This record gives sequence, C-alpha cells and structure tokens, in this order.
Amino acid sequence: MDALTLRPPSGDRTVVRDDITAYLARSQDVICQALADLDGGPFTSDDWTRAGGGGGTTRVLEDGRVFERALVGFSEIYGTLSPERIKTALGRSAATTSSEVPFYATGLSIVVHPRNPHVPAALINYRYFDCGEPSAEASTWWFGGIANLTPFYLYKEDCKAFHQAHKAVCDRYDKAFYGRFKEACDEFFYLPHRSEHRGVGGIFFEGLNDRPREILLGFIADCLQAFLPVYMPIIDRRRNMAVTPAQTRWHQLRRGRYVEFNLICDRGTRFGLETGANIEAVLASMPPQAAWQYEHKPSPGSDEDRLVAVLTNPRAWA
Amino acid sequence: MDALTLRPPSGDRTVVRDDITAYLARSQDVICQALADLDGGPFTSDDWTRAGGGGGTTRVLEDGRVFERALVGFSEIYGTLSPERIKTALGRSAATTSSEVPFYATGLSIVVHPRNPHVPAALINYRYFDCGEPSAEASTWWFGGIANLTPFYLYKEDCKAFHQAHKAVCDRYDKAFYGRFKEACDEFFYLPHRSEHRGVGGIFFEGLNDRPREILLGFIADCLQAFLPVYMPIIDRRRNMAVTPAQTRWHQLRRGRYVEFNLICDRGTRFGLETGANIEAVLASMPPQAAWQYEHKPSPGSDEDRLVAVLTNPRAWA
Repeated sequence: MDALTLRPPSGDRTVVRDDITAYLARSQDVICQALADLDGGPFTSDDWTRAGGGGGTTRVLEDGRVFERALVGFSEIYGTLSPERIKTALGRSAATTSSEVPFYATGLSIVVHPRNPHVPAALINYRYFDCGEPSAEASTWWFGGIANLTPFYLYKEDCKAFHQAHKAVCDRYDKAFYGRFKEACDEFFYLPHRSEHRGVGGIFFEGLNDRPREILLGFIADCLQAFLPVYMPIIDRRRNMAVTPAQTRWHQLRRGRYVEFNLICDRGTRFGLETGANIEAVLASMPPQAAWQYEHKPSPGSDEDRLVAVLTNPRAWA
Repeated sequence: MDALTLRPPSGDRTVVRDDITAYLARSQDVICQALADLDGGPFTSDDWTRAGGGGGTTRVLEDGRVFERALVGFSEIYGTLSPERIKTALGRSAATTSSEVPFYATGLSIVVHPRNPHVPAALINYRYFDCGEPSAEASTWWFGGIANLTPFYLYKEDCKAFHQAHKAVCDRYDKAFYGRFKEACDEFFYLPHRSEHRGVGGIFFEGLNDRPREILLGFIADCLQAFLPVYMPIIDRRRNMAVTPAQTRWHQLRRGRYVEFNLICDRGTRFGLETGANIEAVLASMPPQAAWQYEHKPSPGSDEDRLVAVLTNPRAWA
C-alpha cells in the first residue's frame, strides 16, 4: 500500500471524496493480498449495491490456515436522508433546511479472527462522511476511525507495538490526538453488563473535522497504513505457538464476549441491523464460533485471569 | 408436578402471590429432577439476592449426556419502581400518584439446549407481576407466558404435539386463547434482520388480566404442567438419532441465530442486561456454542432448506 499523494486543499469536496474513495478501494486490494499471502487461502469477493445509491465489495476468507475468518469490506454509499434520520443516526444536525439532505459515506473495515488463540483479533475501520449542500458553509463532513486489538492471551510486547504504531501516526498530526483517541477507544469497546472492555484498545475517533479535509485524509490514510506493518509481525510471532484444549476453550468463551459486544453494544452493527444494510456484510464481523458457559471464572493468577485484569482496568501501552 | 389446588377468589392479592410463588418454586424442583433423571447429570444450584428486594435460584445442567445446557431459573423480586420506570419497562402506566410504586414479580424460566440436533430446543417462561397499592382499584397485575419450540430439523409430529398440548390447555380456559397466543408467539420470536422466525412457535401472552387472578393462576399452572409430558417424549424419540458432522455444523449455525435473537431482539434479555440483573442468570439462556458463516445457504430441497421454509412462513400446527 503506497502512501497517499495529497493534493493541495481545493475547497472542492468532490476531490476529497474521490481521493479517499480511491485510496480505501485500493487499500482493500493490497490488504487482502497481504493477508491471503500469509494464510495461503483466497478471499471470496462479493459486490453489492444499495437500493438508495452506491454499494460495496465484501471480501471474506474463511477457514484458512492462519485465519478462521478475515473480512475486508469496502463501501461507498450515497443518496439522501431526512434531517431527522441524519440526526438520529449521527447524533448531530445537518446544516440544512431541505426535507432531504444529500449524503455521501465511504469506509473500509478489516476484521481478523485468527485461528490460534495466542494471536489477537483485530478490528480496523476508517471512514469519511459528508452531508448537506456542496457549498462549504452549509455542509457537514467528518472522518472516523477505529483500530482495536483484542487478545485472548496477554503479550505486552504486542499491545505496546500496536499502540506505539498508532501513537506515532497520531503524534505526527497532533500531540493531543493519541491520548484522546486511546481513551475514546477504551470507552467505546466496553461491555457495561460485564464491566469489562473488549480488547486492549487502540484508537477511536468520530466526527473529526477540526482541520482541513485534505490533512485529515492524510491522517486516516497514514493510520490505515500503520496497521499491517505492526499486525503482521504479531501474527508471525504467535501463529505457530502450541495450543492446549483449555486454551481453545478460553478462546471460544472470549469470542462469546466479542459476540455480546457486537450485538448488544456496537453502535455500528446495530445501525447496520436496524437500517436493513446488507446483513451478511454487517455480520461478517462476527467470530466464526463462540461459546458461553455459566459462571465461568478463570483461576486466580492464571494467564486467563491476567488478561481479564487488563480488560477490567485498561492500561497505558504507549 | 401435581396440579395446583385453587382457592376460591379472595380479592386478596397476597394469596395469589403466595400461591403462584410456591407453585413455581415447587415446579422448579420437579422439572429439574425430571430433566436430571433423563440426562444422568446433576443441576448446580445458585441462590442469588437482589439488592432492591427478593432474589432467585438459578439451576443449570451443563455438558450432560442429553443436554448441552439446561437452565431452570426461579425468581421472586419486589421493591419499588418509579412510575416512569414501570412505564418504560412494561409499556403501560401504573394507576398511581406516588413517586415510588411497590411492585412484585415472580417467574419460572426453562431453557433446554439438547446435544443432538434432531432434538428441538425449548423455552418456557411463566410469570406474574403486580404493582401499585394493594387495594383492588389502584393496582395493576397480569400474567405472562411463553412456550416456544426451536427445532434444527423439522419433524412435523413434534411440532404438532407441542402445539396441540398447549392448545388443549388454552381451549379449557378460552377458545380464543390459542389462536391469539400462537400468533403473538410467531410475532415475538422474529428476527427482522433475517426476515425469519426463531423456531416453530407455541404460545406467547403478556399482560393477561381479563378474568379473575385465581383463574389465570390456574391457567398458567396448567400450561406449565403441559410442558414435560409433551417435550420428554420428543426428546426420547430423537436423542439417539445418528448425527453427521454436517448436521452438527448446521446446529451450530442455527444456534448463531438463537444468539442473535436473544441479544438483539429479545426484550426480556435486553431488559435484564440494561437493568443490571444477575448477568450470569440472564445469559444462562444462551446456547453453549454457536457459529457464524458468511453467506451460508442450505441447498434447495435439503432438510435444512425445509426448516428454513417453515421459519420464514409460520405454519398452523394445531
């Protein structure tokens, strides 16, 4: 994935749309290729269209050697939404007096569920949204992003590497970014009914529009670009580690929490389910298997218990 | 489980509370004993108390010979709720002007996840609720109930027997009950994002208070009493049937839908999760394992396809 060549700020949002869309679509190819090369298995590819405008391509690798499931989904959707719908869906009003507001949204999501419980699962999502009339004053636009690492066994070196890689990108744009986005990530990936976080965090931001679009476009491109160089070595370190049946069982139970997060807590998944998006694409983020056991508690001092301690109290990793 | 001896209507709701609570608690013992005898494995038993008043006993059998998981949970909770909370939780107002309304709720839930995919899963729940001052005019009370059969392979004889057993009880009380409650059950056990029902239905009712409490108490006792005599023979017919790996896989995938229903659609589970009830007790209804596969579709004309056809278009069974 080569770097994004930034054009000078033009004030014309179609330039940004074209650039971000082309970049995310190209990244889908590059990322699928890298993951497929590592695994040895191919991705299937499904194109879908949205009745109201736009569509996407969902690529999935299932039952591979390294990955039990990997999803790389690209979407570009557009059309009109009522101002109420925009407010409900996005938590903020569009600057408009029209009854139907034009909108445009594009995003890339990567969800990786490795087979070996020593390899953490990963979720990456970068997206751009704008709505309202094209004139600069009346339009609303922002970027959003997620990079989250969900380990089943705690390897501090992996957590640190993941956070440091994302902090390095954040710091190049704004020294305040990483601290804010790390905290927002811990907050977002939280299961209130379990008093527990999903994973060891990373970065999370929404509604980011505090500097020129062209700059933020560069920021999310750089974030996306940081992912494979830090995640692939983690996979390489862990993928051939010996696994006991008890560890496999633990993996399944923790995937149960992953399912709970997706179906109960994740605003993105719930929004997809409620708005009748492509259901198979929305639920392609689910783990391939999960388990539930009544009152399961890891033994004090065990590796499993050490993980839970960190999920209960998020740590500083970078 | 012997029949409930009904006392003559007394107008005193504590009599009804005592009777229903004692009956549900006693039924828990009897049902656990019957399921444990069939399986050979014991139930664990956990007593829990609720901070605001009351508590319950959760009994679970896991990893048995016949049942991968069976849950029989009894609860009796009471205290006060704000009128707003009652309205939000229950969809209707309590007749009161107080800021805190006394309430009382008791229920028995049975969730059975058999090991063999030819044996359907079953969910049974009967409950009583009242709130407001004890004087007859100002108080609100009702009964609720669920009996739902969730097969993984379609055996019409099982579906008919389950429905007929419940229809027979309904008909003894009101010829209009079964038709209404069967339809409400199909409506309740529906996954809108899949355009598919969970299971082949049964009966579902909520807010039932259209005749004297003592009569309705007899009705739900009779419903509960109808369960084992129809479900145990179904288990007996199917528990030793040969199972292929493809059938086990299908079982897991359908349990994925079961999880989706519980976590996304089931008002009871969501209410439990949101109100900070005993989480382990709430989620003890989950299947022991579940799986998701991208774009999985049964082959046309297969047994799996025949099931899906019925889940998409509920049938008349009795």
